[in-house]
Amino acid sequence: MAHTRLWGGIEAGGTKINCAIATASTTSSRSSRSPSGPALPQILAETRIATTTPAETIAQIVHFFQVYQQRVGPLETIGLASFGPVDLHLSSPTYGYVLDTPKPGWRHIDLLGGLGRSLQLPIVLDTDVNAAALGEHRWGAAQGLDTFLYLTVGTGIGGGAMVNGKLLHGLLHPEMGHILLRQDVSQDPFPGGCPFHGNCLEGLASGSAIAARWGKPADQLPPEHPAWALEAEYLAQAIATFTFTLSPERIILGGGIMHQQHLFPLVHRLARAKLETYLAVPQVLEQIDRYIVPPLLGDQAGILGAIALAQEGSGG
Amino acid sequence: MAHTRLWGGIEAGGTKINCAIATASTTSSRSSRSPSGPALPQILAETRIATTTPAETIAQIVHFFQVYQQRVGPLETIGLASFGPVDLHLSSPTYGYVLDTPKPGWRHIDLLGGLGRSLQLPIVLDTDVNAAALGEHRWGAAQGLDTFLYLTVGTGIGGGAMVNGKLLHGLLHPEMGHILLRQDVSQDPFPGGCPFHGNCLEGLASGSAIAARWGKPADQLPPEHPAWALEAEYLAQAIATFTFTLSPERIILGGGIMHQQHLFPLVHRLARAKLETYLAVPQVLEQIDRYIVPPLLGDQAGILGAIALAQEGSGG
Repeated sequence: MAHTRLWGGIEAGGTKINCAIATASTTSSRSSRSPSGPALPQILAETRIATTTPAETIAQIVHFFQVYQQRVGPLETIGLASFGPVDLHLSSPTYGYVLDTPKPGWRHIDLLGGLGRSLQLPIVLDTDVNAAALGEHRWGAAQGLDTFLYLTVGTGIGGGAMVNGKLLHGLLHPEMGHILLRQDVSQDPFPGGCPFHGNCLEGLASGSAIAARWGKPADQLPPEHPAWALEAEYLAQAIATFTFTLSPERIILGGGIMHQQHLFPLVHRLARAKLETYLAVPQVLEQIDRYIVPPLLGDQAGILGAIALAQEGSGG
Repeated sequence: MAHTRLWGGIEAGGTKINCAIATASTTSSRSSRSPSGPALPQILAETRIATTTPAETIAQIVHFFQVYQQRVGPLETIGLASFGPVDLHLSSPTYGYVLDTPKPGWRHIDLLGGLGRSLQLPIVLDTDVNAAALGEHRWGAAQGLDTFLYLTVGTGIGGGAMVNGKLLHGLLHPEMGHILLRQDVSQDPFPGGCPFHGNCLEGLASGSAIAARWGKPADQLPPEHPAWALEAEYLAQAIATFTFTLSPERIILGGGIMHQQHLFPLVHRLARAKLETYLAVPQVLEQIDRYIVPPLLGDQAGILGAIALAQEGSGG
């Protein structure tokens, strides 16, 4: 049997952590989800771990990879797609640390170092949303693009971006969920749920905000509920700001809230109205449903993004 | 005499067009404005042309460069730093055209082609603000950075950005003046001056908006005038949104309005207050006056940026 290349992926979120081991696809057939690009990697093993204390959580992650390696063979690299804020500066003394997170016990924890010391493997780190953007670039809705935005609308809201073919980091990394929106309090008196900014994008439009405003979780609100027109308005405002600032070639909207497929036509209509007066390009005027799209990788964008990070780190 | 390399620069604005010819600096001494980086290019000739009709304006630009070349010798390349919106996609059939500008007579004009056909020189095109960003990166306030923002606050407001060492273009190019802000109409009832969006950033905070709101131009408003606290609030809102979206390592604020030096401390204080709760990095907490800075090239940022474009196009 020929040597099989193996990579690990860790999608580290505030409530759960997905770990997977993958190899390059062994088939030459295209995945139905990725009709025109390279085939998706094949997931050989995966596990889901609850995010508890750092020590316990890191030990469980390490255990998963160690057991697999003892059974099957060594991984080349691991991709770590982490919740934020996280220090991504290679030259920083706190590179790989979780920074000022509100998550109890995780503030200033050396996540990357804790994993690396036990696993003795090269680990490639980025934010969860940047990793998802990379996965969509390799195998999903951003194939062939070099400047685009991946926005996740779930419990919280975050964004990853690729510009000129490289992931955007900059000073720290973007925190796109925290841009300010315009709220018409006569229509929406909800004070906003962000502990830092109240009614920023995340404070008004995240899953947590929807649940707090309407008293029940988003997936229990029917399509005709007024929650959705309001949600679409806030997302369209954010899309306009991101478009004027980053000039993406496409905006991918993922995350649990976007499982509500009926939300896309509403967002398309409102975003087009906000953009068309000043951005008279065909992508906006004629193809808004190709400008603002769901992720092709769906809920696998995160873990496949982590695998993509690992592959990048090993030239794979 | 050794062969002297010559480059041309065109800074094309809606009211005037600056043209210059430059060579590499002949001295090894550093400019006082650029103490740590390469010396500024030496401007050998310059002219200022009013932006009238496209045909007349283009003819005058061509005349300036042709006369100089006949007298001194050929240029290698010309950098064209243009007002927008302008088509920057090399593969587009309208590459180099001015797009849907409100400027009379200039809509869908082949500015690049008109110049190129007459001058028979390679012309490197970018937006005026991207060119200014490039100039500040080479010789000014962004030396050594690879992800930063240049914002001009003048008659209008525009932004250029470098990400991972390359200028940001994307779908069209950023239109950063048109992001939405929050306006407290009980404090500021001015309806906003943007013909497209009313009270967007440009509509509330540009020089035109200041003049319309207060009935006199910004440079006639004394430092204690309430105009400035309001201006600082709007600029700080914009800086927060740009920081959360682009994660720049520095934000350079140029343009005529920023000649009011007293505006910087106000902007520093308000921007820090908006950022510090969620971006607890030293650049924000301790060095906000190094995070938000004036351009080192001052009003020369535009024309020197055009020269920088030309030099990039010739490997210079």
